[in-house]
Amino acid sequence: MISLVILGSGNVATHLFKAFNKAENVKINQWYSRRIDAISSYKNDIEIIDDLAKIKDADAYILAVSDDAISELSSQLPFENKLVLHTSGSVNVYDIDKKHKRGVFYPLQTFSKDTEIDFKHVPICIETIDKKSYPIIKNLAIALGAPTKRVNSDQRKVLHLAAVFVNNFTNQLYRIGHEITESQGAEFDLLKPLILETAKKVQNLSPFKAQTGPAKRDDKKTMLKHLKLLENQHHKDIYQLITNSIQHTHGRKKL
Amino acid sequence: MISLVILGSGNVATHLFKAFNKAENVKINQWYSRRIDAISSYKNDIEIIDDLAKIKDADAYILAVSDDAISELSSQLPFENKLVLHTSGSVNVYDIDKKHKRGVFYPLQTFSKDTEIDFKHVPICIETIDKKSYPIIKNLAIALGAPTKRVNSDQRKVLHLAAVFVNNFTNQLYRIGHEITESQGAEFDLLKPLILETAKKVQNLSPFKAQTGPAKRDDKKTMLKHLKLLENQHHKDIYQLITNSIQHTHGRKKL
Ligand SMILES: NC(=O)c1ccc[n+]([C@@H]2O[C@H](COP(=O)([O-])OP(=O)(O)OC[C@H]3O[C@@H](n4cnc5c(N)ncnc54)[C@H](OP(=O)(O)O)[C@@H]3O)[C@@H](O)[C@H]2O)c1
Ligand SMILES: NC(=O)c1ccc[n+]([C@@H]2O[C@H](COP(=O)([O-])OP(=O)(O)OC[C@H]3O[C@@H](n4cnc5c(N)ncnc54)[C@H](OP(=O)(O)O)[C@@H]3O)[C@@H](O)[C@H]2O)c1
Repeated sequence: MISLVILGSGNVATHLFKAFNKAENVKINQWYSRRIDAISSYKNDIEIIDDLAKIKDADAYILAVSDDAISELSSQLPFENKLVLHTSGSVNVYDIDKKHKRGVFYPLQTFSKDTEIDFKHVPICIETIDKKSYPIIKNLAIALGAPTKRVNSDQRKVLHLAAVFVNNFTNQLYRIGHEITESQGAEFDLLKPLILETAKKVQNLSPFKAQTGPAKRDDKKTMLKHLKLLENQHHKDIYQLITNSIQHTHGRKKL
Repeated sequence: MISLVILGSGNVATHLFKAFNKAENVKINQWYSRRIDAISSYKNDIEIIDDLAKIKDADAYILAVSDDAISELSSQLPFENKLVLHTSGSVNVYDIDKKHKRGVFYPLQTFSKDTEIDFKHVPICIETIDKKSYPIIKNLAIALGAPTKRVNSDQRKVLHLAAVFVNNFTNQLYRIGHEITESQGAEFDLLKPLILETAKKVQNLSPFKAQTGPAKRDDKKTMLKHLKLLENQHHKDIYQLITNSIQHTHGRKKL
């Protein structure tokens, strides 16, 4: 049995609490938030605290707080030499106060409070400084049913960066699809099956092999029609830049 | 019972053949390809031809051929006043020879020969010139179990354009994610659950509401770190442009 204290009450902390609370080999000792209101609805399930002086002993402490708060909060913890983990993709593991054993438990997924998440689909990227901490962190992930991957700092940082491309940037392309269709009274809903299929395709096929469309085919007539159709200069710029990127990837000349 | 001739032997034609061949209320009379070899493996299931002179009478003819071939092939058809449909998102319905009744049967999905497709997830965008053709086209789609939507030319064209954004361009972002992770020996596979979740999220939430991340939060520190991490100028340009686009959408200043 691994004992745990969760700190923070945002998206990640809440999902971690719910999932660890159901897990068999993990006992959550406490849940800390600087705003007790944020988690008071859970007070029958778990001891909640807003005072770090009351924090109990545990095998691991997970700081699921804003990137900027990790360093300071870790210094404020009134103990040392215990395993303290943060959940960020981009914050340095050394930003955790060096009085602790330090590590990273980075869940490579997008969390929102309203969306259920199955940790089976949340790869946990693990980073440690001392090797001895690794089994505990790995077992925490296993308790959630999550796949794990040991990564170094550089790898975690590029994974986080790549996540911005495939998540935030992709979502913005969906948004542009929404804007373009609505501009002619067409329904964005019609694109939803295509959006899903596009994501499914690369589960088994490399994005390189999955590529299709006018840029890949070098179908200049269609690309020029498209550029003419686009009214928004922002959209035109994105069309041109990503088209060039596809052509570069697939050995075509620039548009 | 609607009788049908399919023309073309590419991705779309092959998927349409397989699906219509199983459909209850449709009878495929013939399958035409200019290269008989391409479909000769189906000769026990259907009459295959490569000579337009041999084409039989049918309620509808579907030209699932390259965009550029639609106009010419439609002229070569040795009959008139029959319903002739193309399957393109961007070709004008008037490009079909005017000796025919003309319409569009545009399946808004991505087809590859190796990937199974369930027509339940293929919205068919229908366009007709004369109203009387509409019920036949609609019933063809229904026979496939596909959702349908009547669209006009402008709407079909923007749907096709939006499809390029959410499919081809999104896929290129996946590709960049692949390049970035591999550059540090990290595994692209770790991003696959996130890719799927990102697509699932907008099935019920607008892309506007689904957005998260450093650009939306205006987290300048992280964005600058990311730009520094990116080695490829192409990737930097895309990072900057889509970040600006997100900030524009969400009322932030430019990066
Ligand atoms: N969201 C995701 O999809 C995702 C995915 C992977 C990793 N992460 C990482 O997980 C961590 C948490 O992200 P999140 O999305 O859960 O953030 P969030 O929803 O914005 O929640 C942030 C939490 O940090 C608390 N906090 C901020 N400053 C604090 C301080 N000085 N002292 C104590 N608590 C403080 C906030 O408390 P208040 O409510 O009182 O402000 C809040 O509970 C971050 O490192 C993030 O990079 C997020
Ligand atoms: N692929 C998709 O995801 C998708 C989605 C929606 C709509 N569409 C549309 O569906 C249509 C077909 O696309 P596809 O992806 O199936 O294309 P494809 O796989 O490239 O196949 C094109 C077919 O057209 C035939 N063809 C080309 N020129 C011809 C000519 N002059 N006479 C007779 N046949 C000719 C080709 O024959 P050969 O093999 O002999 O060259 C081939 O059978 C296009 O209008 C496309 O815009 C495609």
